[in-house]
Amino acid sequence: MTRLEQQINFILEIDKIKKISRQTYLADGSRPENDAEHSWHLATMCFLLKEYANEEFDVLHTIEMVLIHDMIEIDAGDTYAYDPEANKSKRERELKAADRIFNLLPPDQAEYVRRLWDEFEEGDTPEARFANTLDKIQPLLLNDASGGTAWKSHGVHLAQILKRNEKTPKGSESLWEYCKPILKENIEKGNIIEN
Amino acid sequence: MTRLEQQINFILEIDKIKKISRQTYLADGSRPENDAEHSWHLATMCFLLKEYANEEFDVLHTIEMVLIHDMIEIDAGDTYAYDPEANKSKRERELKAADRIFNLLPPDQAEYVRRLWDEFEEGDTPEARFANTLDKIQPLLLNDASGGTAWKSHGVHLAQILKRNEKTPKGSESLWEYCKPILKENIEKGNIIEN
Repeated sequence: MTRLEQQINFILEIDKIKKISRQTYLADGSRPENDAEHSWHLATMCFLLKEYANEEFDVLHTIEMVLIHDMIEIDAGDTYAYDPEANKSKRERELKAADRIFNLLPPDQAEYVRRLWDEFEEGDTPEARFANTLDKIQPLLLNDASGGTAWKSHGVHLAQILKRNEKTPKGSESLWEYCKPILKENIEKGNIIEN
Repeated sequence: MTRLEQQINFILEIDKIKKISRQTYLADGSRPENDAEHSWHLATMCFLLKEYANEEFDVLHTIEMVLIHDMIEIDAGDTYAYDPEANKSKRERELKAADRIFNLLPPDQAEYVRRLWDEFEEGDTPEARFANTLDKIQPLLLNDASGGTAWKSHGVHLAQILKRNEKTPKGSESLWEYCKPILKENIEKGNIIEN
């Protein structure tokens, strides 16, 4: 296979993330969104909301990170954030997926994309911190817009959301501040359980 | 409304492109893809295939362009490339859509995104040329992978494809060269009509 054939092969393989369904519903509540739609949304939010990042960061690098961050779910599936059993095996399943999927690319790009994904998972750079913040607030905004469907169907408690969002302010204090009253409203509406 | 409220309002409005169906099918042929999935695919291809561009170009600028290029379809709908009637009113419908949708953003960002879209439509910069090339080859690759479903269902002729792809080599000669044998194979398979 030529280099370009390998790249096109990868580009067709990742088409599969269009079929990986998430727990979050579209804003209109009509159906769950998928990983490709979610990644497009994060990439777009990244350049439109960059002014709210706590730190200077590289926008292109962050967009690349969010574009690839869910590709491992082609093999590993979407693990619901509030499912403790599934989360036990998550890391192992995802590492195996990363090995197979990223290595469809030519070696230099396989390594580049793997490093991007590791950086996202580790969350230790300004780029990864902002990417993680976007990855947390996008479903929160959609859950709110869709009437809390995903929260209600799983009986989600505020404490679970706060635990999951411990690091969200690290990428952007302002975006996390924006979300707080949304959580409050959804408690009042009975979409999120307070205790 | 605060600046951030305006931005979030826009981010929720553009969620609608997840429901704008295209004529192209997913690689596995199971269903048509939508505009959000298509835009994610182009953005990802942009950074993975940048080495094939004819000219030096700004990758971030091009990714921003492909992320926003179909947002006008929220109001204007997806106009099938090979539908001459619909294409007559396309420009007018899209300009009206751009005015409404982009102006949901704060003025500086509304202007920025409008300029990005105009640049894409005009196709006169290295960034717009490469973005347009990606926008043409992505459905071609998916049509091929899915067994030519979209070509067959519309009875598409080679001459129509070549006319539509007149400018595709301007962004990348190599990517267009890669597509030529694919077209040939699909003629042989009876998916594309030769004359």
